[in-house]
Amino acid sequence: MIDQGLAAQLEALLGDRFTCSPGVCTEHGRDISHLDPHSPDAVVFPLSTEEVQAVVKACAAHGTPIVPYGVGTSLEGNIHALRGGVCIDLSRMDKILKVNQNDLDVVVEPGVTRLQLNEYLRDTGLFFPIDPGANATIGGMASTRASGTNAVRYGTMKDNVLSLEVVTPSGEVIRTARRARKSSAGYDLTRLYVGSEGTLGIITEVTLRLYGMPEKIASAVCPFDDIGNAIQSVMETIQLGVPIARIEFLDTQTIRAVNHVSKLDLPESPHLFLEFHGTEQGVDEQVALVSEIFAGNGAGAFQWAEKPEDRTKLWQARHDAALSIPAYATNTRQWWTDICVPISRLADCIAETHADIAESGLYAPMLGHVGDGNFHLAICQREGEPEDVERAKTLNDRLVRRALAAGGTCTGEHGVGRGKMAYLEEELGGSVDVMRSIKQALDPGNIMNPDKIFHFQG
Amino acid sequence: MIDQGLAAQLEALLGDRFTCSPGVCTEHGRDISHLDPHSPDAVVFPLSTEEVQAVVKACAAHGTPIVPYGVGTSLEGNIHALRGGVCIDLSRMDKILKVNQNDLDVVVEPGVTRLQLNEYLRDTGLFFPIDPGANATIGGMASTRASGTNAVRYGTMKDNVLSLEVVTPSGEVIRTARRARKSSAGYDLTRLYVGSEGTLGIITEVTLRLYGMPEKIASAVCPFDDIGNAIQSVMETIQLGVPIARIEFLDTQTIRAVNHVSKLDLPESPHLFLEFHGTEQGVDEQVALVSEIFAGNGAGAFQWAEKPEDRTKLWQARHDAALSIPAYATNTRQWWTDICVPISRLADCIAETHADIAESGLYAPMLGHVGDGNFHLAICQREGEPEDVERAKTLNDRLVRRALAAGGTCTGEHGVGRGKMAYLEEELGGSVDVMRSIKQALDPGNIMNPDKIFHFQG
Repeated sequence: MIDQGLAAQLEALLGDRFTCSPGVCTEHGRDISHLDPHSPDAVVFPLSTEEVQAVVKACAAHGTPIVPYGVGTSLEGNIHALRGGVCIDLSRMDKILKVNQNDLDVVVEPGVTRLQLNEYLRDTGLFFPIDPGANATIGGMASTRASGTNAVRYGTMKDNVLSLEVVTPSGEVIRTARRARKSSAGYDLTRLYVGSEGTLGIITEVTLRLYGMPEKIASAVCPFDDIGNAIQSVMETIQLGVPIARIEFLDTQTIRAVNHVSKLDLPESPHLFLEFHGTEQGVDEQVALVSEIFAGNGAGAFQWAEKPEDRTKLWQARHDAALSIPAYATNTRQWWTDICVPISRLADCIAETHADIAESGLYAPMLGHVGDGNFHLAICQREGEPEDVERAKTLNDRLVRRALAAGGTCTGEHGVGRGKMAYLEEELGGSVDVMRSIKQALDPGNIMNPDKIFHFQG
Repeated sequence: MIDQGLAAQLEALLGDRFTCSPGVCTEHGRDISHLDPHSPDAVVFPLSTEEVQAVVKACAAHGTPIVPYGVGTSLEGNIHALRGGVCIDLSRMDKILKVNQNDLDVVVEPGVTRLQLNEYLRDTGLFFPIDPGANATIGGMASTRASGTNAVRYGTMKDNVLSLEVVTPSGEVIRTARRARKSSAGYDLTRLYVGSEGTLGIITEVTLRLYGMPEKIASAVCPFDDIGNAIQSVMETIQLGVPIARIEFLDTQTIRAVNHVSKLDLPESPHLFLEFHGTEQGVDEQVALVSEIFAGNGAGAFQWAEKPEDRTKLWQARHDAALSIPAYATNTRQWWTDICVPISRLADCIAETHADIAESGLYAPMLGHVGDGNFHLAICQREGEPEDVERAKTLNDRLVRRALAAGGTCTGEHGVGRGKMAYLEEELGGSVDVMRSIKQALDPGNIMNPDKIFHFQG
């Protein structure tokens, strides 16, 4: 329950865009993680930076926790309201404010989703490449330093946010950078807020880099008899500097799920899904080089597509994977893991992980953005099998420790949220104390999304 | 003068790698900026992280300021010891610790210079692209978020530092990230320290991204009758997404200086210097496209080169520019400006700046990394003409204000140092208060390179 005075203040400010409805609160306490939901006590739906600012000031005055929320597609409980408080749902701040066509950038409100943005951009010849699986909001993607299938070519949110407008925990509005492509103007606050998961302030505007649509896009799907050969092909492609746009891995278990659910008939074996962006000649050249690398590693027959509808069809298995797995493994709950390792360690890491999966007895299909060294398991925990939870925990634990031992990270793109807090300390040691000091400096009252990333009492 | 006890402690620790010699101190109080030098009271030459840590702990205990120093090539007084104290010269920590060939990364000590690194890498087929004009150290380049001529293709230090080891103001050693290509593991401390100019700690190790040497490199030089046409060509090249590796502008005044000093005979007109990296076919394609763009904007005849020695010769004017200007404008002192604007505003910005230069009566040749929207003036202030200082100040002031009005930044790559502190407040407003809070949190005693980036009393 939030303070009556605060409730009255928020209601006066926002009218029916303030609610304590249990249904709305329950909905806003859930993401798509394996962790138990935690509902806020109230939800607000601001329409402007000024409204966000007023809400933050009101909550700050009452010491009431604030959790920013986009569309609830986080995977580590990042939006769980562990101490209750007010959820700021930013999904109605969904205006695309300005496309600067000649500068290849766009200014958006945080509630704009990635699909909405690309739909809007369609006639401009520009696009925004970052694509986490879900149709997440740009604000949420910035907050978790999201990436997706195109990151191997276009980078992550870290590389594609030019500037942010942020409401600080004390209710000030700041802008972290100008629109220039590069700058040495002081501490890089843009990159500090990107990935800070709402613990340092609320993002109310985002300026993003855009890219020209490539002249040619070609997609391919290629089966392998052996995972080692598939990953060796990925490593050689990256090491040779091929500017591949996407290189995605689906293991046999994932293919099986997709075949079943999407009525496909891919060979039940490990696959790589590829996409090439460039000029006509450039794509042809990349394709020739990759075909040679793959042939040298015993790849099966490629399937190719160039027309948009054919590409979509060819990639259907990849696009459908996240939904196919739960549909195939009925009555299970997914725990999505998210490690990322230096690419030279990827093959070993995947092989050892498959051995762990076999030993665990769990159904845990694997897929990943292997060009970055990043892969996920969807560990399926059966309902009514409490042992699966423990098994999943052990499997994830071994996976993370293996990644850390290989010089990798416990989270490639999902963020720390609640789920990876203990691992963060293992991964970065004393750096977490520095993070804590920054949190203490910027949010001494600990009102911004408390109990996320690291333990902090304020 | 530093405290006697501290001096004794540092001498016991480092022997003759601690000095209060006036000559050495004077040398370490100078960079290549237009600002008056300020010497430290002592200089230390550590050889290891442990020694840096011991020095920091000793200085912290005495509240003595610390200024990290590479090779003194900063351009905004970034290494001036405004409050005296101890200069930590890191140039002897110059070991290349590990090349991870298969992961395309390298771990270096901070005193490694960029030329040293590329020399070392020569036989590996890999290279590190960031190239500020001077042969700066990697630690210094990270500290100022440096870039250079290749940034249009390869990004800046922000994009190419994977991880840092840092000695914090309290003498803890932290590592900001693992070696994975991407991560969402908490606050991006790597990017916080990159560009923090030694105000938050001392960088003692840097992990950098490397790139495969391109199969083909082609260089070109092209004169224009008109600056507007030259910049229009740059804008179209960038807007079309040509992955050009370098696109550098030299105005007529710069060409004149280089012709005179380097005995060249380039036409005395604005020039673009270009470099293309890629496969054989890819470079040919880029060249064809750029040639077409340039022809459409009335470009003069291209000169081309592909062999390394020919490329070096062709680019000589660009490489020699920074030294040719002072050699040509004898008895002057250079004030290097450093604005960066959104590329759509670049042509106007350059035209208006040239009008300002004409009005100022100063010799101020212009050159720049125009593909990023970044350009420099070398404002030449004549000895014995005190009015030139005021004129230069006015010229720089108008330039920065114009950049800010265009959505740009007061510093594209040199950092804020002492010289841009007032402008930083204009550029980022309340964000500077956030920076100050971070400084307060991490360096409450204000011992780390005080009086840089922003005013702060500690």
